[in-house]
Amino acid sequence: MDLIKALNWRYATKRFDADRVLPENKILRLKRTFNLTATSYGLQPLRLVVVQDKPLQEKLRNAAFNQQQVSTASHVLVIAIEKEVGKEFIENYFRSVHHIRKTPKEILSPYTESLIKRFEKASPRDIREWAVNQAYLSLGSLLTACAMEEIDSCPMEGFNPQQFDEILGLTELNLESILVLPVGYRAPDDKFATFKKVRRPLEEMVLRRP
Amino acid sequence: MDLIKALNWRYATKRFDADRVLPENKILRLKRTFNLTATSYGLQPLRLVVVQDKPLQEKLRNAAFNQQQVSTASHVLVIAIEKEVGKEFIENYFRSVHHIRKTPKEILSPYTESLIKRFEKASPRDIREWAVNQAYLSLGSLLTACAMEEIDSCPMEGFNPQQFDEILGLTELNLESILVLPVGYRAPDDKFATFKKVRRPLEEMVLRRP
Repeated sequence: MDLIKALNWRYATKRFDADRVLPENKILRLKRTFNLTATSYGLQPLRLVVVQDKPLQEKLRNAAFNQQQVSTASHVLVIAIEKEVGKEFIENYFRSVHHIRKTPKEILSPYTESLIKRFEKASPRDIREWAVNQAYLSLGSLLTACAMEEIDSCPMEGFNPQQFDEILGLTELNLESILVLPVGYRAPDDKFATFKKVRRPLEEMVLRRP
Repeated sequence: MDLIKALNWRYATKRFDADRVLPENKILRLKRTFNLTATSYGLQPLRLVVVQDKPLQEKLRNAAFNQQQVSTASHVLVIAIEKEVGKEFIENYFRSVHHIRKTPKEILSPYTESLIKRFEKASPRDIREWAVNQAYLSLGSLLTACAMEEIDSCPMEGFNPQQFDEILGLTELNLESILVLPVGYRAPDDKFATFKKVRRPLEEMVLRRP
């Protein structure tokens, strides 16, 4: 589908067709999109949790103010951030750079060291904010990918992250859920699909310089 | 282009072909993508600044640690946040909802009031973080759109926002620049185009539940 047509076609789906399941190859494309998303310094302080199980989705729905899109969706994607981005994490990344690109260690070392120092100086709150920003960036990428693939989705900030972390076993992996994205097929009777999009006028949203 | 192919094609372009200019219709598609991006509560606390002027781009480059992609790109997009998201901003939004969707005011009022209260209770720092998150979301959307449209781009967090705000006249509009995205065509000799992508293995990045 044409990009702009696809972006107009998408909407925050409130009611999914609970009987329809996204084929595995579509889910694979979303996973790949997530992994191909650009992140700050290339560090990828993120993970994607893919949930496909109605009883488990019911539990998540209870931890998401009972919003039915969580239980009726084909799959629920949860974007989580890494809670420990420090020396080890950064060194791991540069080991991959060396392994994949064959960049000599002498060239990577100074950059590795300066990045480690930068993170050591930053407060835990700043590092968390930085990682959360990357989670939102990946959500923007996923939403656009969903639209292009004609997959319905509903981006959600409103849920209980602690409960999600417990239900999904993320706490022990040092992960924290930040965003939830149920995906699947819109129910034919979802009235939200018929609502006109509300957007500020383009000439107000975009400024030209000079 | 196929979505995954496009995402593999894209890379953070460091050297643009300074002689090539993106056609107006491509820029329009990016502006539309930006305006169609989902935002929290639909509030769109954002603006996009489109810069196309080499002398102005040189000034921005000086305010961006001299990174040449700012001056060589065809256009420079700057994603800014609104610094005052309060009662008036929220009421404006719901006026649009009423105008565009013809939703009766009696239905919109309670929601409007509760959202205003929520923002009144939030700290300025929390509101800023919330808006910054939406800026990142829109960047994810724009990056994916660029890839689909075969537009080269380079997402940038590293620049001097105060200087950008001054140069672009954003301060007096109560806007704050958050992210910079030079767009255009890669230079044939940009060696970064040949580097292999570094990504964590898909099986590490994605967890399945149950």
